[in-house]
Amino acid sequence: MATRRIGMLIFPRLTQLDMTGPYEVLARLPDTKVELVARTLAPVTTDRGMQILPTVTYDSCPPLDVVFVPGGFGQIDLMGDVVVLDFLKKHAKNARYVTSVCTGSLLLGAAGLLEGYEATTHWAFHEMLSGFGAKPKEARVVVDRNRISGGGVTAGIDFGLRLVAELAGETVAKTIQLGLEYDPKPPFNCGHPSVAEPQIVAIAMRQIEERRAARD
Amino acid sequence: MATRRIGMLIFPRLTQLDMTGPYEVLARLPDTKVELVARTLAPVTTDRGMQILPTVTYDSCPPLDVVFVPGGFGQIDLMGDVVVLDFLKKHAKNARYVTSVCTGSLLLGAAGLLEGYEATTHWAFHEMLSGFGAKPKEARVVVDRNRISGGGVTAGIDFGLRLVAELAGETVAKTIQLGLEYDPKPPFNCGHPSVAEPQIVAIAMRQIEERRAARD
Repeated sequence: MATRRIGMLIFPRLTQLDMTGPYEVLARLPDTKVELVARTLAPVTTDRGMQILPTVTYDSCPPLDVVFVPGGFGQIDLMGDVVVLDFLKKHAKNARYVTSVCTGSLLLGAAGLLEGYEATTHWAFHEMLSGFGAKPKEARVVVDRNRISGGGVTAGIDFGLRLVAELAGETVAKTIQLGLEYDPKPPFNCGHPSVAEPQIVAIAMRQIEERRAARD
Repeated sequence: MATRRIGMLIFPRLTQLDMTGPYEVLARLPDTKVELVARTLAPVTTDRGMQILPTVTYDSCPPLDVVFVPGGFGQIDLMGDVVVLDFLKKHAKNARYVTSVCTGSLLLGAAGLLEGYEATTHWAFHEMLSGFGAKPKEARVVVDRNRISGGGVTAGIDFGLRLVAELAGETVAKTIQLGLEYDPKPPFNCGHPSVAEPQIVAIAMRQIEERRAARD
């Protein structure tokens, strides 16, 4: 029997690495079951076409020690969805940690779960956090009491290791980091607008705007 | 119509982040279709329980510009599987790049595709590469002619960006890196045995041995 349950929300057009990065880290926690929670048990298609199977529905989801929300443009459709927001509110009430990666924090915000908390999100959406009463903080991972949020997409790996350290201590986190050979060597120094060349930032922003407009 | 096809092999008990990391990077290439190739179209269960749907089978897979093999203990079962090895040999012959992450390189090796090539793999399996006639090289990503291999698990992100630069140039690779906010800040300096504390290396190696023995 798993002694710890982590529930990761999945939904159409999520960004899969927002979820699969932390999943790979968190599923290595001892005595832990990671649930993928969706509206139904039908396959969920991510924003780049990968299809992933949920393990439980909103209705059948057991009590959670950790609530986790990934990002992606699909999450915009959920921000006014009472069923999803109620699910998050209900499970956040008793969870030990309420967490997100990338624009997942905007959905936590829409559920009223970041009011008065420091939080982060993908760099292109950072300014939106204050609209939900959150205090935007520029950092790869932000911990404020029991709210933990990661920045854009790949920040989910740093986030996952940080959460493991909180839940199970540094030795477990370090062992998982070594097992995953997480000794990154990015080929370019351009992973954040603060370091990328201006023309790369301009192209990235234009692409994000186009995808937001097209919603596909 | 996609002008470029990338085929990623998936199989029971693969390590999902070996594949999902590069998938997130490669699926952002323009005019590109990423196929998940398996024996049948039934869901494939990764070594930590996530279920992912293939898009094509060995038989229905179209010609590929890039052949990619992820790792995980499930790949050990495939190393003597003639159907899989023949699939890899057939598609490698005309592919522009033949690639792997983590212990995926051992499967390429078993198919005879790394003979005389420099390659890398997960740190715990590095010594096995020479058994397939490959030249083991300690590096996060190794490029030797049209063979590109990444190290353990998370090296797949570095690998993916390097492959994008080869296929589509540095501007595209940098834009994807920025979109994924790949500006990693690992919480600990322990992602490789060369930097981790000896007791962490010992725990990680014991866990890997246990999982290899249990094969579950």
